Parts: sequence; C-alpha cells; structure tokens
Amino acid sequence: MAIVRQTLIYDGPGGPFEGVIAWEDEVETPRPGVLVCPNILGQKESDNRKAEDLAKLGYVALACDVYGQGKRKTRESENVPEYMDALNADRMLLRDRLDASLAALRGFAAVDPAKVAAVGFCFGGKCVFDMARAGLPFLGGVSFHGVYDRPDYANVSPIAAKLLVCHGWEDPLCPPDTMVALGRELTEGQADWQIHAYGNAGHAFTDAGMPMAEGSGFGHEERADRRSWKAMSDFLAELFV
Amino acid sequence: MAIVRQTLIYDGPGGPFEGVIAWEDEVETPRPGVLVCPNILGQKESDNRKAEDLAKLGYVALACDVYGQGKRKTRESENVPEYMDALNADRMLLRDRLDASLAALRGFAAVDPAKVAAVGFCFGGKCVFDMARAGLPFLGGVSFHGVYDRPDYANVSPIAAKLLVCHGWEDPLCPPDTMVALGRELTEGQADWQIHAYGNAGHAFTDAGMPMAEGSGFGHEERADRRSWKAMSDFLAELFV
Repeated sequence: MAIVRQTLIYDGPGGPFEGVIAWEDEVETPRPGVLVCPNILGQKESDNRKAEDLAKLGYVALACDVYGQGKRKTRESENVPEYMDALNADRMLLRDRLDASLAALRGFAAVDPAKVAAVGFCFGGKCVFDMARAGLPFLGGVSFHGVYDRPDYANVSPIAAKLLVCHGWEDPLCPPDTMVALGRELTEGQADWQIHAYGNAGHAFTDAGMPMAEGSGFGHEERADRRSWKAMSDFLAELFV
Repeated sequence: MAIVRQTLIYDGPGGPFEGVIAWEDEVETPRPGVLVCPNILGQKESDNRKAEDLAKLGYVALACDVYGQGKRKTRESENVPEYMDALNADRMLLRDRLDASLAALRGFAAVDPAKVAAVGFCFGGKCVFDMARAGLPFLGGVSFHGVYDRPDYANVSPIAAKLLVCHGWEDPLCPPDTMVALGRELTEGQADWQIHAYGNAGHAFTDAGMPMAEGSGFGHEERADRRSWKAMSDFLAELFV
C-alpha cells in the first residue's frame, strides 16, 4: 500500500485554485471522497497531511483552496486574516468556491461522486457549515474548532448533510452560547447533528504545531485532537455505509 | 465464549442490595469492571442486558441496586419515583450506597479492582456524576441522558474520574443551559470531560422499550442510542489501557 499525492488545479470564480489530492494507489474501484477545508492560512502542508491521513482510512481526500492559486499566509505574514476576511465578507462567493472545490473532488476519477464528505478546521469548519447551509452536494461533514456565525443567505430547509461538530469548550471564538445557538440552528434545519464538546480544549485543539499557551484558549490539546479524529473516523464510516 | 450472569447480594446502608453481575466465563485473568447504574425504576432486566452487552466487550459488569432488595418499580407502579425521590432527598445516602455497590464489584473475583468504571441511565447518570463528585474509587464513567443537579455536599477537587456525558438535546429534564452549567462545574473541578450532544434526541434515548412520542422529548432515538454506545466503547477502551 502506498499513499500518493498530486497537485490538483481547478477552476472556479476568482480561480484558478490549487489543492493537493491524496489516495491509496492500489485500490482500483472508486472510493468515497473527503474535502479538507483549511484554516485561516489557506491550503498548506498540514492540510496535505490530513488528506494523507484520510487516504490511509480508505478515502480520496482533497486539501482544497478557496483563496486562489498562490494566495497563502503563514503565522508570520502581514495581515494574516486578509484572504479569510475577504470571504467572510462575501459568503456567497465562499459558497461558490466551495462548490467548485467539491466539483473538482467529485470529478476526480478515483472518487465515487455519490459518496463525498467534508472536514474542516477553524475557518474550514465554517466552510463545512456553509456547505450544509447552502445545500451543496455532499453527504455530511465534520467541523473541528469551527466558527458558527451564519451567512447572510437563508439556509436550505431541511439541511440534508449530516454534521459532527467537534468543539473546544474553552474556545474564545465560540463560547458556549454560540454552541447552543448552533444546536438550535441545526435543529430548526432538521439536520442530523451531533456536537462533541471537549473540556479543557480551546481553539485550534487539533493543531500540533501550536502549543497551548496557559489561559489563552488557543492551541493543541492532545486528548481532544485524538478523540475528535476517532469520532470523525466513526462518523465517516457510518456516513459511507 | 459464553456470557454468564449471577445474582449478587451485598451489604450497605439500608441494605441488603441485590444486583446481577455478568461476565464472559472463558477468561481466566481479572478484567476491568463496569458498574451499571439503573434509571428511576431500579435494577431490572434491561439493566442486566446492558451488563451482558458490557461483558461481550470483555468486562465484568454489575447491574447494581441502590434502592434495596425487593424495592423496584415499573412504569405501571403507583408512585413511580418513590425510591428515587428518597435518594434525591439524601444524596449522602445515595453516595454511600454507590460506594457499597462499587465495593461489591471491586471485590468480585473476576474483577481487576484497579480498573473499574461506571455507566448510568437517567437517574443512573446522576449516580455516575455523584460518584465522580464524591471521589469514589473508580477511573471514570459515562452518563446516558443523566440528570445534572448537584448534591448538597462539596465536590472533591480535583475530580479525578474521567467523564463522558451523552446528552439528548431535546431532553426536557436537562435543557441546554443545564448542560452548559455541567460543563462549567466539571471544568472548575479540573476533570477530564466530554459532552456529546445528540440533536433530535430526548430523555431516555437509549430506552428501546419506550417509543418517542412526537414532541414529548422522551423516548428512544435509534441514532443517538447507537452512537452513544459506540462512544462509550471507545471511552472505556481508552480508560482501561
């Protein structure tokens, strides 16, 4: 068994976009696909590795790009939230770029286009919610320390995508009342949803490269990282039955 | 492989107590033990079956009794909450009876007394929380649609038991603000905790014998039942490593 990865360049509004797709090369039949939605920084090596980890679970995974080819940030960049802010200010454009990313994944030869899911981290978690809210063609998704504010367009009704929300209790971007509001929104939308709230975990609890500074509410939390990945694995297995 | 069950009569304040213990009889070495804490009705056949299901996972499980031998209710009884109400009015007595139940399990020959957990349903979920709050000798526990009001004694600090809280979002006994208050209590207690909230599920979502009446917030919800059992299995596997 070997995991291969390939750069995938695809079109869409404001494109071209550049992502990285990973899969296990010895499987001959189409497999379920998983879109990996990056955090504030945009598609990068840690997303490519998540795609590889999903490939090890038997899926084809695309670390996607909603900023545009060459538009990336690091923690050291000037104006780190620049590209994210632009999409937060235009959620319909974000939706259309997610739709383009989904289409690139669904159109990839090794993918069974009837079995596609999404996972996302931080801003990428918001992307997963927006895909569900907009009724994009995917079965369900997982948000890891996502952000819960609603877009300015109306949700589809019912929300057909199944959702698993992995939530850090100490996340300063999403205090408990925003989590409760999300539960209400998804219930009103008649979605099949779960929220897993992890005590002692903050924002970015999956980010092994960001140590948690005491009291900051930001950074890696090993238990929540491990448990949420297991929960995601169980969720995807159920989704793709 | 065969699962065996045996009636276990044990002492404690207000006893004797009568439970049912189940295990797989072909294993020769001591195994982890799991206390099964019943709902409002007291120990009954559905609890014995949960004990058997836990035995199939490789544990020794005791469907315990905190009411006293012969004190049981059915949904058709007069004054269904009679025995539960008496213990809700005397949480120290409840604690001492849980301690006696734990001692019966830990003293059973097939059990490794260093590896003991508890699971509980409805009032039994409250029992799991009280065991953690009181610092009884167990590693951790799982509450299924438990009840979150605190006892009148102070919690131990820190709370050493790890906790998984399986919560039905539509549970009228535990609306979201009580769930948030529980999260705060466990965080203050420095516990290792998780809450899994299930959309569309109400109180008693694990109770296959109680169909969910539309809008009642009570009764069986197949997805939450299945997912919470899987989460419990993962939790116990992690706890007993």
